[in-house]
Parts: sequence; structure tokens; C-alpha cells
Amino acid sequence: MERSTTKRVTKRITTTAGGAQGIFSLLASVLAAVAGLALNTQTLAQTDPLPSWNDTPAKQAIVNFVKLTTDKSSSRFVPPEERIATFDQDGTLWVEHPIYTQVVFCLDRVPAVVKEKPELADAEPFKTVLSGDRGAIAKLSMRDLFKILAATLTGMSVDEFGAEVKKWLDTATDSRWKRPYTQLTYLPMIELLKYLRTNGYRTYIVTGGGQDFVRVYAEEVYGIPPEQVVGTMGGTKYSYDKEGKPFLTKKPELLLNDNDAGKPEGIHLMIGRRPYAAFGNSTGDRQMLEYTKAGEGLRLAMLVLHDDAKREYAYGPAQGLPDTKVGAFTPALHDEAAKQAGL
Amino acid sequence: MERSTTKRVTKRITTTAGGAQGIFSLLASVLAAVAGLALNTQTLAQTDPLPSWNDTPAKQAIVNFVKLTTDKSSSRFVPPEERIATFDQDGTLWVEHPIYTQVVFCLDRVPAVVKEKPELADAEPFKTVLSGDRGAIAKLSMRDLFKILAATLTGMSVDEFGAEVKKWLDTATDSRWKRPYTQLTYLPMIELLKYLRTNGYRTYIVTGGGQDFVRVYAEEVYGIPPEQVVGTMGGTKYSYDKEGKPFLTKKPELLLNDNDAGKPEGIHLMIGRRPYAAFGNSTGDRQMLEYTKAGEGLRLAMLVLHDDAKREYAYGPAQGLPDTKVGAFTPALHDEAAKQAGL
Repeated sequence: MERSTTKRVTKRITTTAGGAQGIFSLLASVLAAVAGLALNTQTLAQTDPLPSWNDTPAKQAIVNFVKLTTDKSSSRFVPPEERIATFDQDGTLWVEHPIYTQVVFCLDRVPAVVKEKPELADAEPFKTVLSGDRGAIAKLSMRDLFKILAATLTGMSVDEFGAEVKKWLDTATDSRWKRPYTQLTYLPMIELLKYLRTNGYRTYIVTGGGQDFVRVYAEEVYGIPPEQVVGTMGGTKYSYDKEGKPFLTKKPELLLNDNDAGKPEGIHLMIGRRPYAAFGNSTGDRQMLEYTKAGEGLRLAMLVLHDDAKREYAYGPAQGLPDTKVGAFTPALHDEAAKQAGL
Repeated sequence: MERSTTKRVTKRITTTAGGAQGIFSLLASVLAAVAGLALNTQTLAQTDPLPSWNDTPAKQAIVNFVKLTTDKSSSRFVPPEERIATFDQDGTLWVEHPIYTQVVFCLDRVPAVVKEKPELADAEPFKTVLSGDRGAIAKLSMRDLFKILAATLTGMSVDEFGAEVKKWLDTATDSRWKRPYTQLTYLPMIELLKYLRTNGYRTYIVTGGGQDFVRVYAEEVYGIPPEQVVGTMGGTKYSYDKEGKPFLTKKPELLLNDNDAGKPEGIHLMIGRRPYAAFGNSTGDRQMLEYTKAGEGLRLAMLVLHDDAKREYAYGPAQGLPDTKVGAFTPALHDEAAKQAGL
């Protein structure tokens, strides 16, 4: 069985920098996980907790961080209850190109929504989505996209929504990989989640994606329970059905946009503790990484660099170009991180 | 050493009712905990996990619920990851009369706020608060109270706020009991928290009080960590200080009022799972109890009845009167619960 060992490595940039500001590392080349292999946990080596990682300073930084913060005799020891590690999802734990999985779900749901509300069939942006014209759909504005998200992610009960997502995930497949989306995770990052948990860290997802959406599969896919999923949050409304049984309906009301500054704000809201380690891959994760690093003691902040076009996608700094569409990770952020890491 | 054994019991109403709708019990007379005793965990008997509870159907309902939901051979078995128990705080875990502790904190903070903003000294409701006229303060409207809450609970950094609350709790004392507020907890309920945790339940606070306020002391007082405190939530704003260090400021923006319907909504937002057991004492807890009961399998929903005027306060149904000021628990809710419990 093939083991994903990040053979195609174009960059290996990382370092450790101790002190109150903690460690800032650029995590390069961890994106070689072949989809599907992520679930084959039996193949993981027993001795090396991160067998899919090349022996780079990035890996060493992680191992050092874990050793120092879990060793009671270390001045950097962190009590178990404070061991929080937060992970962005899209582009950090699973593939985000060419389009966020949740957006695919929303687009796929448009016909069902139009069936319930036929007047939408001739209204934009629903008309364009129904046309199936991929070029036109790709050109939809953010404003149009929000209309689609609101129409497809709200208006039903929380339970109905969860069932819809589950049904979709069971049948939908990625067009390039021909696999369910839940298999498009990065094996090295799955190993990292487990390694941190084995060492007493509680792993949280902190995603710009919908909190209710990610909660449906996070336990099965990442081993992360619903209460440890922080995402973009919408309001719900409590009411009663005909039999007097209470239920919650998803409202088109944004409580918190869990991107950019919303990530540390969401972490405070949902966890109430500052993470000791944080992992992201785009400018939308910048504030989460900054907030993590700004805590006292040893902290670990890492960025995933997407540089493997063959086994995943190469974009952002790996191409020397800003990518403003999906998972924007500009060369400027890359350079800033490299500078902070003393590279 | 005195053991609080709920000697003054005026009502003992409880029952168990299995089935899909679960158990609804009226928990009477658990309010005899003498303040301060709550922390003497050494005095708890080893054999009886609830030594401060009289041997009533209420106690039996709890013990039965725990036994059935944690016994793998039982049809009512609940997997450990789903064992969630939620507790209202004011009037359920600690004393709420004659005034919510957090409101006392806010009133006590008014002079400091006015010192920073002298223009408030002659503006209502601050002028009334500064006058020290207890009668006039007690008559302030809800609208005035919200002005005081906004002025005293927001505008500072999250860290500064936490430090302020901690400092206040270390020095302020209740006027009747002459003890720190953190000692005014109900010993039987502290035992219940521990009993549930010992049996794999994760205990959450779900309070109308401020989430950031309660998180400051919940770990020390109740053994409940910050991430398991759900409360009324305000927004925060991420920004940088002069040295470029990021911090979060508490904004006067209400994200969720964690009372009434806000309780199940807050539970969904923060936990994403339906509780198996819920405990409250007022009409503000009604929806949380309903939502808990509406889940499948065996559920436990209980109300604390305040009937001990000597060792705590007697109010609400124990007086046969609605109490609309603090911890409103109307005879109607009492009667409905009793009816559902088959009493």
C-alpha cells in the first residue's frame, strides 16, 4: 500500500524560535497525502507518530513543541486542561480547490430549494446555478454567493439540515479525484491531530465554513466532536411543531463570520482559552496564528504551503502569486512568516 | 462539622416517568446547603454520592437515570461522548436573591466607570446608582439596568475584564451571609455535578448571566472549565496595541441572550448536542428543560424549588406567588411540571 511521504517537495522552510512569542514555523510540503489513504490508520508506524512527514525542521518543531509542553519538568510545561490546538479546515485539513466543498453542497442544493420555491427559478443567481454553466457559476459575485448560502443553509430545522448534509456527503464525489469529499483529507495533518491528542491536546477546528455543516462529519473524519468545531455561526429559532415538540430552525442571521479577525473572536466565544498551537494556510488564518503566538510560554503557529500540483494543487506562494479566490495565501504573508521564523 | 441534610422540607415532589419523553421530576428541597460547606469535599461520604440529599424520589430519579444511562447492558445506555448535563446557575447552583451576583458586580463597578467617563455622573441611571439609595436602585427599569450592564461589562479588553471580576470576587461579600459570593453555592447541587462527572457526564453551565463573567470562577467554584460555560454572549473586537500585540475588546453587542428560548439556541451553538439531563429553577429554564426532554431515550429534567427561608430564601411556588423580579418560577410552571411528573 502506498504511503504518502511527501516525495515531491519544492520548499522546506521551517524553524523554531522560542521565547514569549513562541515558535512560528512555516510548514512546507505536508500536502502530499493521497486522498483516501488518510483513513488507513492501521498503516501508521508505531514508533514515529508522524510517519507521513519528511524529517524536516517543520516536523522537528512540532515534536519539540509537544515534548516541551508536556514534560512536567520543563519550564514550558502546559497543564492538560490548557492544551488547546486549533486547525483551520479548508486547505489545512482537507482540499479546498478548485472550490470549497460546502459551496459545492450549496450549489447542489439549489434545485431542491427552487422546487420548494418555484419563484426562484427565474431569479438570479439561482437561474445561473440551474443553467449548469460552470463558467457563469464561477463568475458569480460574493453577493450572489451569499444569497445562495442563505437560501440553501437556512430555513430548515437543525435536524433536517444535518440529515441533508449527511445524505449529500454519502453520495457526492469530487470531480477530479472521483472520491467522496470526506476522503480528501491530508494524511500528514490527520497524523498531527492524533499526535497532539495522544499528548493531551484537545484539537479544535476553527473554520470559515459553517459550524453546523462541519459538525456533521468532523467526528468521523477528524475525530473532532461537535462541541470542538468553531465555524461561521448562524442564529437559530426555537419553536414547536404541531405536536408541541420543540425544535430549532436555522435562521438567515449571521452571528459570527469565523474568518480573519473572526477566528480569534470565535475562539474566545466558543473556547474561552487561547490556543497553544494553531495551524492554517491562508490570510484568513493570520489573526488566529497571531493571537495564538501572542500568548505567554511556548506557542506553535504553522502555515501549510500548497506546492504539490500532482497529488493535490499548487497555489499561492508556491506559484509566487496571490490567490484571491480560494484559500488566499499571499507571498506577503509567506514572506512575513519566513522572516519571523528567521529564514 | 454540620452537614446540610435538607432538614426543613416543606415539599417533596418528584417522580420518574420513562419512555421517549424521558423523566420529568420536580426537585424539591435541595436548597439547604449552608454556604461555605460546599467546598468541604472531604466530608462527602464515600458510599453515597449524594450525601446531602434526603432519601426522596428526587434523589432516586437521579440515581436511576445515571445507572440506566451508564450501564452498557441497559437499553437506555448513552455513549460517554453524548453524556451532556446542563445547569442553570442563578438559583440552581448558587443563590440568586435578593439580586443576581453579576448585577451587584455591575453596580459596584459604576464608580470606576464614572471616574473614567465623568460625564456619566449626572446622567441616569448612573446618578441613582452613585447615590447609594437602595430603594431607588431597586426600582430601576430593565432599560436602565441594560445601560448599566453595557457600561460596566464592555469597553475593556477581555483580559482586563477577567482581572476585574477576579479582584471583585476576592473582596466582595454578600450582605446577609458575610461571605464571598463564590461560597454561596448549593452543596447538594455541587454533589450532583460531581456525581454526574464521576459517571462520565460532562457538566455545562447554561446561564442567563454573562458568559465571560461566569467563566472567571466556574472552574474553581464548580469544576466547570471555560469551554463548558454557555451564557449570554457579547461580541468582541480583535485589534492591536501600540506594540502590535493583538487583543480582544468586549463590545456592547449582544450575540445571544441566553435566557428562555436562548438557552436551547445557546446549547446548539456552543455544544451542538442535546443534553441528556438539565437542571433549572425558573421560567427562564423552561425551554432548556423542554428541549432536553424532547430528545430520544431517557432524559432527566429537574426544577429546584426554593422553600427554605432560613438557610436560603423561599420564593416562587413555595410562597404560592409568582416572583417576576429574580428567578421567576411561577406556580403555573410548578403545576405543569407536577402534572407532567404525574403528581
